[in-house]
Amino acid sequence: MNRSDHRLAGDRTGVWLVGARGNVATMSIVGARAIAAGKTDTTGMVTKREPVSSLDLPPIEGLVFGGHDIDPESLVTQAELQCDRNDVPDETTLAAVRDDLAAIDDRIEVGTAVNCGAAVTEESERIDDSLAIRDVIEQIRDDYETFRNHHGIDRLVVVNVASTEPEPTEPERYDDRDGLERAIDENDRELPASVLYAYAAIDSGHPFVNFTPSTANAVGGIRDLAATESVPHMGRDAKTGETLVKSALAPMFAGRNLQVLSWEGHNILGNKDGLVLEDDANAAGKLASKGDVLDSILPEIGHNRVRIDYTPSLADWKTAWDYIHFEGFLETEMTMQFTWEGSDSALAAPLVLDLVRLIAHADRYGDGGLQPQLASFFKAPIGVDDHDFSRQLDLLYDYARQDR
Amino acid sequence: MNRSDHRLAGDRTGVWLVGARGNVATMSIVGARAIAAGKTDTTGMVTKREPVSSLDLPPIEGLVFGGHDIDPESLVTQAELQCDRNDVPDETTLAAVRDDLAAIDDRIEVGTAVNCGAAVTEESERIDDSLAIRDVIEQIRDDYETFRNHHGIDRLVVVNVASTEPEPTEPERYDDRDGLERAIDENDRELPASVLYAYAAIDSGHPFVNFTPSTANAVGGIRDLAATESVPHMGRDAKTGETLVKSALAPMFAGRNLQVLSWEGHNILGNKDGLVLEDDANAAGKLASKGDVLDSILPEIGHNRVRIDYTPSLADWKTAWDYIHFEGFLETEMTMQFTWEGSDSALAAPLVLDLVRLIAHADRYGDGGLQPQLASFFKAPIGVDDHDFSRQLDLLYDYARQDR
Amino acid sequence: MNRSDHRLAGDRTGVWLVGARGNVATMSIVGARAIAAGKTDTTGMVTKREPVSSLDLPPIEGLVFGGHDIDPESLVTQAELQCDRNDVPDETTLAAVRDDLAAIDDRIEVGTAVNCGAAVTEESERIDDSLAIRDVIEQIRDDYETFRNHHGIDRLVVVNVASTEPEPTEPERYDDRDGLERAIDENDRELPASVLYAYAAIDSGHPFVNFTPSTANAVGGIRDLAATESVPHMGRDAKTGETLVKSALAPMFAGRNLQVLSWEGHNILGNKDGLVLEDDANAAGKLASKGDVLDSILPEIGHNRVRIDYTPSLADWKTAWDYIHFEGFLETEMTMQFTWEGSDSALAAPLVLDLVRLIAHADRYGDGGLQPQLASFFKAPIGVDDHDFSRQLDLLYDYARQDR
Amino acid sequence: MNRSDHRLAGDRTGVWLVGARGNVATMSIVGARAIAAGKTDTTGMVTKREPVSSLDLPPIEGLVFGGHDIDPESLVTQAELQCDRNDVPDETTLAAVRDDLAAIDDRIEVGTAVNCGAAVTEESERIDDSLAIRDVIEQIRDDYETFRNHHGIDRLVVVNVASTEPEPTEPERYDDRDGLERAIDENDRELPASVLYAYAAIDSGHPFVNFTPSTANAVGGIRDLAATESVPHMGRDAKTGETLVKSALAPMFAGRNLQVLSWEGHNILGNKDGLVLEDDANAAGKLASKGDVLDSILPEIGHNRVRIDYTPSLADWKTAWDYIHFEGFLETEMTMQFTWEGSDSALAAPLVLDLVRLIAHADRYGDGGLQPQLASFFKAPIGVDDHDFSRQLDLLYDYARQDR
Repeated sequence: MNRSDHRLAGDRTGVWLVGARGNVATMSIVGARAIAAGKTDTTGMVTKREPVSSLDLPPIEGLVFGGHDIDPESLVTQAELQCDRNDVPDETTLAAVRDDLAAIDDRIEVGTAVNCGAAVTEESERIDDSLAIRDVIEQIRDDYETFRNHHGIDRLVVVNVASTEPEPTEPERYDDRDGLERAIDENDRELPASVLYAYAAIDSGHPFVNFTPSTANAVGGIRDLAATESVPHMGRDAKTGETLVKSALAPMFAGRNLQVLSWEGHNILGNKDGLVLEDDANAAGKLASKGDVLDSILPEIGHNRVRIDYTPSLADWKTAWDYIHFEGFLETEMTMQFTWEGSDSALAAPLVLDLVRLIAHADRYGDGGLQPQLASFFKAPIGVDDHDFSRQLDLLYDYARQDR
Repeated sequence: MNRSDHRLAGDRTGVWLVGARGNVATMSIVGARAIAAGKTDTTGMVTKREPVSSLDLPPIEGLVFGGHDIDPESLVTQAELQCDRNDVPDETTLAAVRDDLAAIDDRIEVGTAVNCGAAVTEESERIDDSLAIRDVIEQIRDDYETFRNHHGIDRLVVVNVASTEPEPTEPERYDDRDGLERAIDENDRELPASVLYAYAAIDSGHPFVNFTPSTANAVGGIRDLAATESVPHMGRDAKTGETLVKSALAPMFAGRNLQVLSWEGHNILGNKDGLVLEDDANAAGKLASKGDVLDSILPEIGHNRVRIDYTPSLADWKTAWDYIHFEGFLETEMTMQFTWEGSDSALAAPLVLDLVRLIAHADRYGDGGLQPQLASFFKAPIGVDDHDFSRQLDLLYDYARQDR
Repeated sequence: MNRSDHRLAGDRTGVWLVGARGNVATMSIVGARAIAAGKTDTTGMVTKREPVSSLDLPPIEGLVFGGHDIDPESLVTQAELQCDRNDVPDETTLAAVRDDLAAIDDRIEVGTAVNCGAAVTEESERIDDSLAIRDVIEQIRDDYETFRNHHGIDRLVVVNVASTEPEPTEPERYDDRDGLERAIDENDRELPASVLYAYAAIDSGHPFVNFTPSTANAVGGIRDLAATESVPHMGRDAKTGETLVKSALAPMFAGRNLQVLSWEGHNILGNKDGLVLEDDANAAGKLASKGDVLDSILPEIGHNRVRIDYTPSLADWKTAWDYIHFEGFLETEMTMQFTWEGSDSALAAPLVLDLVRLIAHADRYGDGGLQPQLASFFKAPIGVDDHDFSRQLDLLYDYARQDR
Repeated sequence: MNRSDHRLAGDRTGVWLVGARGNVATMSIVGARAIAAGKTDTTGMVTKREPVSSLDLPPIEGLVFGGHDIDPESLVTQAELQCDRNDVPDETTLAAVRDDLAAIDDRIEVGTAVNCGAAVTEESERIDDSLAIRDVIEQIRDDYETFRNHHGIDRLVVVNVASTEPEPTEPERYDDRDGLERAIDENDRELPASVLYAYAAIDSGHPFVNFTPSTANAVGGIRDLAATESVPHMGRDAKTGETLVKSALAPMFAGRNLQVLSWEGHNILGNKDGLVLEDDANAAGKLASKGDVLDSILPEIGHNRVRIDYTPSLADWKTAWDYIHFEGFLETEMTMQFTWEGSDSALAAPLVLDLVRLIAHADRYGDGGLQPQLASFFKAPIGVDDHDFSRQLDLLYDYARQDR
């Protein structure tokens, strides 16, 4: 099938956001619609820079948004809160997209909160908790299909941007397709919601991206399914701030044969993510993927700790302070410190749009299973061991430069 | 000629340091001799880490040191001062190499200070300033040969680690071999000392490394000569601290399509380098090569300034504070800051040894002219446009992985 | 005269701002009117906190603003620019005071730019440069009186918030009243504009505050005049950011007998102040008063440098990085670093209002001459040697607690 | 009794250190003996700076050291470890005092570890745990007296510098002298060791200083006893680093009426203190006293958290990173950050010597009970509510300036 055939196969791309009223989803939608309205530019989007921008990707203006959430506050309200607390988006941008937000909000369905952790489940409406797991999946699948049919969508990408769940205990029972489907059939109440969303997507042939540290498509059962069904998927835990910097800096210490004695990372943030991560169970997954980057690049690191604390006044902004104590020639001890201060959602949102466009492209060209060319977007890229940001980018650039 | 022939060609490697009693030279010698004595390890040396360590490089223990300087204080005194002011080297290490330093100091000849700038030339003894330029070159060349013969050296590497000179005015007159040799013949008094050392080395067939921002082998005339005579050489301005970090971090901003609005770099240091660089003429070259890295990686950068200030109490330690103001998605302005605190000499010294070993290797295998695989060592790698540290390292790794 | 008599003496307080369309003046007016409109609170105002708030001070709501400027852009435009570039004030606040700003803008007269330095005088309209100095003063004085009469003002406070001028050469010729008046009579073209404004104010009996590093009332001639005429005045160079922190921190090092070896201060800012201060002549005064604080508190400091650089993207925001290298017990060298990131105008504006209220109070109670209780507001408080912020505050608190 | 009588009363001052082989004790002894040997100066000592240095204090050279510890490693070994790991003291200083350390080590008795917490009591030798509390106290008291008699000491100051204990549960039972003595008589096994040391000291008439966050003399029962017996004592938790900075900086925010929204403090350190404080029970007291400083100076602070983490590679060095998010005029949000990097012991040791000298002075002049003039030395000064460092220093300066 040549490029024009692919194009003929249809280009109306839908974006189904699990956690559609959260900060990241809200900002992604605001951004996409503001770009469509000519009210902002595409700074921060990897797919808008060479060589990736040469790929024939679905246009941002044409993306059709929908999603699940358990939070009843509307997208408009969420965006207003963001504007008010963080000045992102600003008032002019918000005004330009307010009607779009209201329309998209009507397409957001009530989600499930199975095993989302105590920090999350105090919130209100959700898919009936007493339904069998299999029935929850069916309802999710129905929501996908209804949206797809209703909006004439040719290709639906499902992206998990919901708050981080606790890690499941004994996840190895989901490590192959049989085990996973048995768990579903036996109504295993410990299956995390993110796995259900991923299963429903991939089993229906929809490309899936896990933007969060939650389990989702990382379990072997989902990976098997995606490989068998040849559905593209990728994850885990988008790399937006401190870990991004680590993945750029740590290779420098390795490359110069400098011995990192200690690398302390202290993150403070004030959004719901911070609040959820204060709950130790929910933080475990995130801390693991943040820590792994250094352990992988600097296998002889002496000490490696990451902390995440909730600092309400920061709202959606987050500050990381990293302290790196290292030894060089003649046992000389030296230090590097950095602080990184950014808007969590403004860093994350363009990557959501990038990932949607790139995984839709993979789907169009029949590339199923894991998508290693997307490794640079993730703290814990499934199936990719190299955490060096530059090398991860090279995977993407090589992909972009392939002749299609 | 196969590998064993090369080996037969002899392996006694001499290291001629221009500025042999300066901080960097002193620390390089102390380090090499401490390694030979088993008193320290090779942390900080790129050639002691895979894949580069697989190359058949001259052993550190066998390097024979000599050099030029205009500073009459002995190497032992210099090392004692370093130990006393900076705790690098420590007293135990110093004690272990003191006799070696004394012996090496006897091999240091008086150098020339032609056009080294006002900040340097207040120092005392030097090659007679009234000699014709051609005669100065001859004296330098004689010093190389005497050392070589006296110590039975098979391959002599010349490394410029002297204090930074002012940039010459109208350097384009030295831009080809004819122009350069005409300037020498016409006794052009504006030829900088570093060019004379480079000329004498390369014209005699000795590999040459310019570790400093001075002109040396960067002029076209020297490059022509090295190409014609097939002598390996490389430079300019070793990348040890702030610029190293920039070359690792700036690609991250580029890769994520984040718009750097301003990048302010403020360096404070207390050694002679700092004092010399307070003299604006001497600083110009260094500031240019530090600034170029960002301009090259981030061509759309809004504002890019580097300052170097002299802070006596820091002695050989230097601290850089960098402030990066950048814009992301939805015109969100964010910041990153870092401080880097290191011992200038301890960061530089292992790279001197690395460069000696690698350029000796190139010479052994007949690789003449510029050595782009050494780009990662330099702020302004001659003939290499890519300032991304990761990609520069890949040049070295590819070289190391070649089958020889 | 008892308190009620004073009150009877009239309470309509006018504020004449020299540099009335600059950032600081604009923000002061915006803030005062926003407080009057109930749109913001008084956070950041010293006079709104005990014990100072117990004094019977003129209410913020009642202040009547006017001023001089040479910049033709209206106050409304200036405030819009501030809102747009810095998000201070925000759009809601701006909307609430826009009409007030327009009305106040009508009361701003064209000022003089005599000896304001090259960086400033490229701007357009101003009092005719060819007028004799005495005539310039008369015109300024007329502007004060016209405003006063027109608005029924009982007490007019003049505050210099114009851009920093270069230091005059040989200021000692203005060191007593005779010298100063002779210079005026002899049409001394080197008299800085700030001195003319100060002279016109004090000679007319109007309290005067110099919020900037410019000369103004610091010369002996003006001080004599104010003492003789019993007009309260104070200055010099409001302490809003880095120097404020220094005056709080340096006493800690002194109090613990820690030896500061080096204190490096690096300021980057993006407003007109930054641009003006890049001009070395204009920066001299500011750097001197910033440096003096440390020299005074830490007389044995080893090294003390302050830099101010212009970083356009920061707009009205400024960041200071200070690096403090100190020695403690057993010759142990240690470091402290801080960064301070603030909106220059938002830090300065409440102090303008505080100073107006406090100097009006002094005037009401007949306290003429210098006002040492206001020392805590200034980097170089005229007539006060103590730079310890805590002790300076005690002067204010003691004043506030006096029984009147 | 006049000053000369006091002098006649004898001046041989003994210093009994509880935790005599710990880092702080070791460094205090090394420092005192190095000063006595003329090998270092008194930088870092408050009592060596005007106006305090004018008091007639016991000379450092004459202090006679002894103490308790449960750690069997000798003082010489401890000092060597410090020198080796931290470069404080340096080798020259260590060599000069090595014999003194060995002699002092012979005077160190085995201590008690009752209720020192799990993190501490894994260490070896100690006073027999099965002894009745009253008998433990008697043995401590005997150790004090034996030392005193053996060395002809006129005045013995006891200083607790042992590792931090857990807070006792229900400390209110010790809140008056009767309750405390009943607990002793009833062999209350929950009485912390620090209280026993304090009781033994004060009941024997020896001035007592609690340099640590442990309970010791903070309970009402000890305070009653000291008041009744007129024995001077003071504490709690020496203010050496981050909290010192807080107590200097926080008043600045208060004084300018800036609203601190969040103050995050993150401490990393690598010595035994850090390890002990990783045990949450032991950390509670320290975190409380560190946090209280801000709550006291900034009663309206929005968020205030302190973390202490153990980073082994830092050895005795500690780094604090503080992030201060504050609001100023027109609701403008701004930030200040600082890092403080110091040698824990080198910051603490001079204060031990200062406190010994000052409390001996109080004792000589018959000033019993709490000593508020010493508040500036402590994070939680018993009986003093003012945490403003400048005001605390004024208490000391006023004391020093009193005519005696």
